Amino acid sequence: MEPNMTLAYYAAGAGILALLFAMFTLSQVLKESMGTPKMKEISEAVQEGAMAYMNRQYKTLAPFAIVVFIVLWAAQYFVVQEPGSHLPVGPASAISFLVGAICSAIAGYLGMNSTTKANARTAEAARSSGLAKALQVSFRAGAVMGLSVAGLGLLGVSALYIIFESPLVINSFAFGASMIAFFARVGGGIYTKAADVGADLVGKVEAGIPEDDPRNPATIADNVGDNVGDTAGMGADLFESYGATTIAAMLIGNTIFGFAGVIYPLLIGAVGIIASILGTFFVRTSENGNPQAALNVGLWTTNILTAVAAWFVTQNIFGDTAQFGTVGTGVFMAVMAGLIVNVAIGYLTEYYTAPGKGPVNSIVEASKTGPSTVVIHGLAVGMESVFIPMLFFAGSIYFAFWSVLSNAPAEHAAEWAIYGIAMAAMGMLSTSGMVVAMDSFGPVADNAGGIAEMAELPASVREKTDKLDAVGNTTAAIAKGFAIGSAALTALALFSAYVEGVSHKFHADPELVKYGGKFVVNMTEPMVLVGMFIGAAVPFLVGAQTMRAVGQAAFGMVEEVRRQFREIPGIMEGTGKPDYARCVDIATKSAISKMIAPGLVAVICPPLVGFILGAKALAGFLGGLTAVGVLMALFLANAGGAWDNCKKYIEQGHLGGKKSEAHKAAVIGDTVGDPCKDTCGPAMNPLIKVAGTISLILGPLLTKL
Amino acid sequence: MEPNMTLAYYAAGAGILALLFAMFTLSQVLKESMGTPKMKEISEAVQEGAMAYMNRQYKTLAPFAIVVFIVLWAAQYFVVQEPGSHLPVGPASAISFLVGAICSAIAGYLGMNSTTKANARTAEAARSSGLAKALQVSFRAGAVMGLSVAGLGLLGVSALYIIFESPLVINSFAFGASMIAFFARVGGGIYTKAADVGADLVGKVEAGIPEDDPRNPATIADNVGDNVGDTAGMGADLFESYGATTIAAMLIGNTIFGFAGVIYPLLIGAVGIIASILGTFFVRTSENGNPQAALNVGLWTTNILTAVAAWFVTQNIFGDTAQFGTVGTGVFMAVMAGLIVNVAIGYLTEYYTAPGKGPVNSIVEASKTGPSTVVIHGLAVGMESVFIPMLFFAGSIYFAFWSVLSNAPAEHAAEWAIYGIAMAAMGMLSTSGMVVAMDSFGPVADNAGGIAEMAELPASVREKTDKLDAVGNTTAAIAKGFAIGSAALTALALFSAYVEGVSHKFHADPELVKYGGKFVVNMTEPMVLVGMFIGAAVPFLVGAQTMRAVGQAAFGMVEEVRRQFREIPGIMEGTGKPDYARCVDIATKSAISKMIAPGLVAVICPPLVGFILGAKALAGFLGGLTAVGVLMALFLANAGGAWDNCKKYIEQGHLGGKKSEAHKAAVIGDTVGDPCKDTCGPAMNPLIKVAGTISLILGPLLTKL
Repeated sequence: MEPNMTLAYYAAGAGILALLFAMFTLSQVLKESMGTPKMKEISEAVQEGAMAYMNRQYKTLAPFAIVVFIVLWAAQYFVVQEPGSHLPVGPASAISFLVGAICSAIAGYLGMNSTTKANARTAEAARSSGLAKALQVSFRAGAVMGLSVAGLGLLGVSALYIIFESPLVINSFAFGASMIAFFARVGGGIYTKAADVGADLVGKVEAGIPEDDPRNPATIADNVGDNVGDTAGMGADLFESYGATTIAAMLIGNTIFGFAGVIYPLLIGAVGIIASILGTFFVRTSENGNPQAALNVGLWTTNILTAVAAWFVTQNIFGDTAQFGTVGTGVFMAVMAGLIVNVAIGYLTEYYTAPGKGPVNSIVEASKTGPSTVVIHGLAVGMESVFIPMLFFAGSIYFAFWSVLSNAPAEHAAEWAIYGIAMAAMGMLSTSGMVVAMDSFGPVADNAGGIAEMAELPASVREKTDKLDAVGNTTAAIAKGFAIGSAALTALALFSAYVEGVSHKFHADPELVKYGGKFVVNMTEPMVLVGMFIGAAVPFLVGAQTMRAVGQAAFGMVEEVRRQFREIPGIMEGTGKPDYARCVDIATKSAISKMIAPGLVAVICPPLVGFILGAKALAGFLGGLTAVGVLMALFLANAGGAWDNCKKYIEQGHLGGKKSEAHKAAVIGDTVGDPCKDTCGPAMNPLIKVAGTISLILGPLLTKL
Repeated sequence: MEPNMTLAYYAAGAGILALLFAMFTLSQVLKESMGTPKMKEISEAVQEGAMAYMNRQYKTLAPFAIVVFIVLWAAQYFVVQEPGSHLPVGPASAISFLVGAICSAIAGYLGMNSTTKANARTAEAARSSGLAKALQVSFRAGAVMGLSVAGLGLLGVSALYIIFESPLVINSFAFGASMIAFFARVGGGIYTKAADVGADLVGKVEAGIPEDDPRNPATIADNVGDNVGDTAGMGADLFESYGATTIAAMLIGNTIFGFAGVIYPLLIGAVGIIASILGTFFVRTSENGNPQAALNVGLWTTNILTAVAAWFVTQNIFGDTAQFGTVGTGVFMAVMAGLIVNVAIGYLTEYYTAPGKGPVNSIVEASKTGPSTVVIHGLAVGMESVFIPMLFFAGSIYFAFWSVLSNAPAEHAAEWAIYGIAMAAMGMLSTSGMVVAMDSFGPVADNAGGIAEMAELPASVREKTDKLDAVGNTTAAIAKGFAIGSAALTALALFSAYVEGVSHKFHADPELVKYGGKFVVNMTEPMVLVGMFIGAAVPFLVGAQTMRAVGQAAFGMVEEVRRQFREIPGIMEGTGKPDYARCVDIATKSAISKMIAPGLVAVICPPLVGFILGAKALAGFLGGLTAVGVLMALFLANAGGAWDNCKKYIEQGHLGGKKSEAHKAAVIGDTVGDPCKDTCGPAMNPLIKVAGTISLILGPLLTKL
């Protein structure tokens, strides 16, 4: 089809629409009452702590971003540009990088602002109105986050494309987003777990006071952590997936189909966003209703609307049978594969981590013989939980590829089919707005419960927020599966795009000529194996760094909480006021200082491998990194989730309930699981994507195969 | 060079020499006194338990072996044989398979017989003579195991080659060895840890009695476990590596160099065995000497003798410059790379797990804040410990490849270089005799200590055996690194041989013709990716199965020990005799029943992937499986080792020593680490090798690419 930039304006328009709707929703949330002065005070303390962390995080990252900006700008002078080709470096790339980084930060701020402002309002809604209203307020706050993420993602990519008209030039948008995302995920993850582990180890285990008890000095930091880790971190993660996948699909599409291949992912994004906006209207429940059902209705509405609209978009773009044959059908099927695998991974994640089901029951059973067997069985559940999701990924990769292959004209089949994988990723991510909304609602409800506890509201309020929080745990599990699945498909799309880039750069190399000008990543070549072995080891290294960071940061927090319990008179009786701010400060400082090292590993490894060992090694590196990163992400997230729910299940009164030996064992499992599921595991997603986005830029710049 | 079967007889002769020397050494061991009647009684109970387990294990495996034997024999009727080519199935293959399986079993029996007979004799030597004699007895027992493993391996392969004259036909020898090894590793691993965890959880943690206390009903089972897990399991593992690597190198060598390439690995094996025999004479210490130093002298002597002799062998085989140019130098360098990486991995493993060094210290420090942080930091150490070894593997792969490449004539360079990887693996394994001897001596010393404790010998005896046991821990760490490293290189050699086989089978396929008749495992093809994702997930599945098996088996053991403490009157006072046999029986039954499921996964996955998804998917499967299997093996072994030594370090009196809170936390870490380091981790080595050996047979039988 002929290039028609109006279509790109449609996509940008959908992005703007999402942002406007997010602003409108935020204004609705802000209209609600914050409740008692005590509630307001606590909420503001959480908000202040969260914003202070975000400010410090972005201030720390600014110099890194500026260095990369300059490198990207200046790199054009060191690279030979072939006539008629675009370079992935230069002013446009540098600007795109900065836009990506800044959009990621803005999405983070917008979402955090909304969720931290909604926590007291949700508690108040539960107190004065009831469950239905509390769901409405918390879900709306989540929707602000979700639509900001998706809206800024789509707007950013389409606006840059409208300006620079080349997907290659703007691919640093994805790099900017992913660099920020990695730091935000790791920093937020360390923050939240340092505070949580610190609060639990001293408060719950040593002092024997309940969670969120106002006497615990780390309790505000713990609530801040929920926001900076679970909300801002997840938002940045999916913003990155969104940007990276869209651009990778555009790049691959450009090579294969020209303009049609470029505009199609943008339009799939647009229909997904509009479907997400419409979906939010279906999330409502009655006073005795089931909030989970309400959210499911919203999600399914979004999925179905996206599927239907995607069909029409496909007809429109790939309908020209003379040029494309029936490939539109294949591409559409690939998009559907993404939507379906999304749902499947979500349910699988839930199965492995939900209380009352086989896997968690096995850990509960093991808690009878103490903490060692709890940990052993939790590790077993985590390891087991990767297998079927990996089969689903493998199946969706093959189905997406095959559906395009079997619908393409024979002479193009193999070449076109790679677009299927990219579009499966795009299909999966198109509903990000809704998925992030469902995910972000959880921490709001969790925080609302914390505020209810700290402000000493009646138990009935906490009951309602607990009901929402329980639902939030399920949606969080689904979103985690979604984040991992989307990262896996995004990484594969980036990998394909990287290979395209290298093929283009080295097409005249005798080795590529031998393979018809194509870059073949041959696993039997030692350089590919070398890269694969190195890449496969990196997730373990980053896992170790982040795991240890939590251990060390929690250690600092434990010492501070112990100190306050010891030194502040009357703190346990409720007459002395704990120094919340100091705990917030400790968490902030340690998270910021400890996110740097893993961040550098993530950003520096790909150029080192690429420039020293060459393009083949970097391809092997990406392959090994992706496979192992996805495995570790699933393993760590599910083991952690299962431990968490084992503890919760016992707390419901099973095996003697709280204070039983089984509960003590389960608490130890849960504490081990905390950094697994909220720091190391989530760090894997941006790790594999940041490697992909950097490699995409490096591909055309590498000097040897 | 012209085929000269006399050289193969030399190799077989070296194997026979090793076996004769092993028999002679055994007779030396048997001459020693077994000490008091009590010591004799305990030793015989351990021996009886171990032999009962071995008998049951092989009886259970016999039907599986017979099924495979029949399948291999009958498969010739379902496969079209191309004229002039050998098939990897048929009577010769079936016989080779059986010989491999039986040799593995014999090696296990010989070694077990020797180590279980030497335990009381070592204790008695420590009592009546002293440390020097105790080292002599225990090391001699280990040497019987080591030389049986290497001797039977070399004799088996060379004899079959002399009979059938085709490396392809005899490659089921490796399959037989690896099938048995997988079951032996997993079964032995479950046995040893079920007994150990069960004994510790009730004995040490609940009843507060020391390790190896005769009042503990699980104590004999625990000592049996050391033998069936650490000795027989490790022996089977390295026997498999030995067989598989030799055959893979012969296969690759045959394609590239003809007879010279086939005979060379056999001769390297021969010189390694003779060097190992000579090396054993250098292991001797004075009464106040350092047993570690004595073992190091033995190991270094073996390494240096092997290196020197390998040089002359290389000159002899690849000395014909007209035919081979300077490739001999390259091949020799590859062999050296194997020897060196062997040493490096050993030292790295020791660094990450030795008490008093950084990694273990970080866990010790974490024990101040309780079991959760012990587990968190242990996981971090485990994850961190994979990175540098993986760089070494990557480096050795590249070096081995490059050294052949740069010494080969330009027109053959790329084709010949793959032989470098196989010969690096062979170089590494050539010294197996010595490494297994050093490893097997550890459990003998450990058992001797147990017998000293149970027979209530003076504390000075236990001190001496403890000194040997501590050295045994280091040599075990080195051997573990060796087993993982050799498995990695063996798997790569098998992978290369598989690719050769597929190339040969499908050389006329248009897709291979496009690539010059070569099977290119292109990581960007979805089938390769699909296979890689599935293969990468399998180690996690097997890890989960084996981890859970230990949890469940230990659970049964805990209940039995608790029952005996409750029901047998006077057991805690030492007046009632515990029912040791029942614990031995429980461990045996649960190990046998739980080894089947992971065994089936290991054996069935490759044919499923190969026949359903094709040769490309199976190649991807092997790649993913190898990378992740090696990572998991390192991670699990080192995390477990570090936890173990953290506990031991605290028991030496640090942080309050035994009975302190820190010690309690460390014991929990150690218990978690037990199945990691002795069941799941070791299962990874035979897992990746069994997949390789099966694929090697499958390659020429697959029906689609």
